[in-house]
Amino acid sequence: MTPANATAAIIIVGNEILSGRTRDANACWLAQQLTKIGVLLRRISVIPDVRETIVAELNALRFTHDYVIICGGIGPTPDDVTRPAVAAAFGVPCEPHPEAVEILQRYYGERATPRRMSMAELPRGCELIYNPFSGAPGCRIDNVFVLPGIPDLVQGMFPQIAQVLRHGAWHECELRTQLGESEFADLMEAALGLFPGVDIGSYPSWQNHNWRCTLVFKSADAPTLQAAYAWFDDALTRRAQELGKPK
Amino acid sequence: MTPANATAAIIIVGNEILSGRTRDANACWLAQQLTKIGVLLRRISVIPDVRETIVAELNALRFTHDYVIICGGIGPTPDDVTRPAVAAAFGVPCEPHPEAVEILQRYYGERATPRRMSMAELPRGCELIYNPFSGAPGCRIDNVFVLPGIPDLVQGMFPQIAQVLRHGAWHECELRTQLGESEFADLMEAALGLFPGVDIGSYPSWQNHNWRCTLVFKSADAPTLQAAYAWFDDALTRRAQELGKPK
Repeated sequence: MTPANATAAIIIVGNEILSGRTRDANACWLAQQLTKIGVLLRRISVIPDVRETIVAELNALRFTHDYVIICGGIGPTPDDVTRPAVAAAFGVPCEPHPEAVEILQRYYGERATPRRMSMAELPRGCELIYNPFSGAPGCRIDNVFVLPGIPDLVQGMFPQIAQVLRHGAWHECELRTQLGESEFADLMEAALGLFPGVDIGSYPSWQNHNWRCTLVFKSADAPTLQAAYAWFDDALTRRAQELGKPK
Repeated sequence: MTPANATAAIIIVGNEILSGRTRDANACWLAQQLTKIGVLLRRISVIPDVRETIVAELNALRFTHDYVIICGGIGPTPDDVTRPAVAAAFGVPCEPHPEAVEILQRYYGERATPRRMSMAELPRGCELIYNPFSGAPGCRIDNVFVLPGIPDLVQGMFPQIAQVLRHGAWHECELRTQLGESEFADLMEAALGLFPGVDIGSYPSWQNHNWRCTLVFKSADAPTLQAAYAWFDDALTRRAQELGKPK
């Protein structure tokens, strides 16, 4: 029995996503990275830049998931409320972090205005997540990782998070078919019963005026996954023959 | 005083989004459409194809938002659990909808297997949202709109939803600047105090090795929005002069 995969939730903070002005690029990228290292993403929440909403969401998710990644709203303008909101969720002060102060002073030099230095105000007790491009760091507090909203920065900072996450085994394979979903749905049902712990999803897409289906098999247990895949592949071949159709 | 804009939440159901396999295209498109007609999108939740999770999410959101749009998981395979989950959230049976049965029988003809016909099983008391491309309809029950996950279908079906939503006035304008966020953050704070009901967001982006900022002003009240914009534009011009920089 393999140990259960770690679970995660992502919170995207941003009025600009909710208005449709900006298409979020972080959730999908982070989802792919988490999946690669065997962390099971259970939820993505997109919420506005409102302090109380962020506090409530974070406290709803941080006890029910192994990890929470929160992106956006850590800049220096008044609509950037994520840093104090995270501190409030943990019931700690949001205060200048000595190392972050040093980093920002070094980065801005004479241009280090109080407003810019406000980006060094972080929840007490957090560890920094360094920003390889511009000065302002993200941070980690307990199981919560706080990142900016700009995709280049998220992608530059994620490796530091990946290092500390508990990686899990996670196996996946795909099967494509020209049969319609309704022609193999009973086989899915049978397979889900026969191979517990294997998740099977069916994803139809409309291509060249025809439906095509991709079946995705997933499991933390490789041998069970292989068995489920082999059983299904065989069942699908027989089904196609019965129907006199190409598989 | 203009009436408050209607609020909405979107629920995207799909393991394939959470694994990063598929990049969701529906939330951003729907966000844009809702914004265009003055409906205020307050939250997007991406959750797995798990019946209890869907029931809990829907019941958490349908009483706190004027409208909920839920996308995905209404096909015929066993991982499609959204239809019965919506019925369970409302405490009504999920049963064959006579008109949906008729539509699917017409669409499939001799190919109308029980599995395909299961797509006509909908929450009792719902109204259909017709599908202009393939047979299977979506539905509306109370303030909840149930749509498929395939973007072409969502976009084809949304006009039927837009018709029944309460449209609101919503005004927006943008101001671009080469100043850094820290150089005008105090102006934002002042403007937010001076013009209540106006929302101002600052969105930096990294272009040609320089930061550029777009300020987005929004309000349900057009004159207040114009006043806030004019005040800010003027204040920004003076700030740029003080700093000896291009605005």
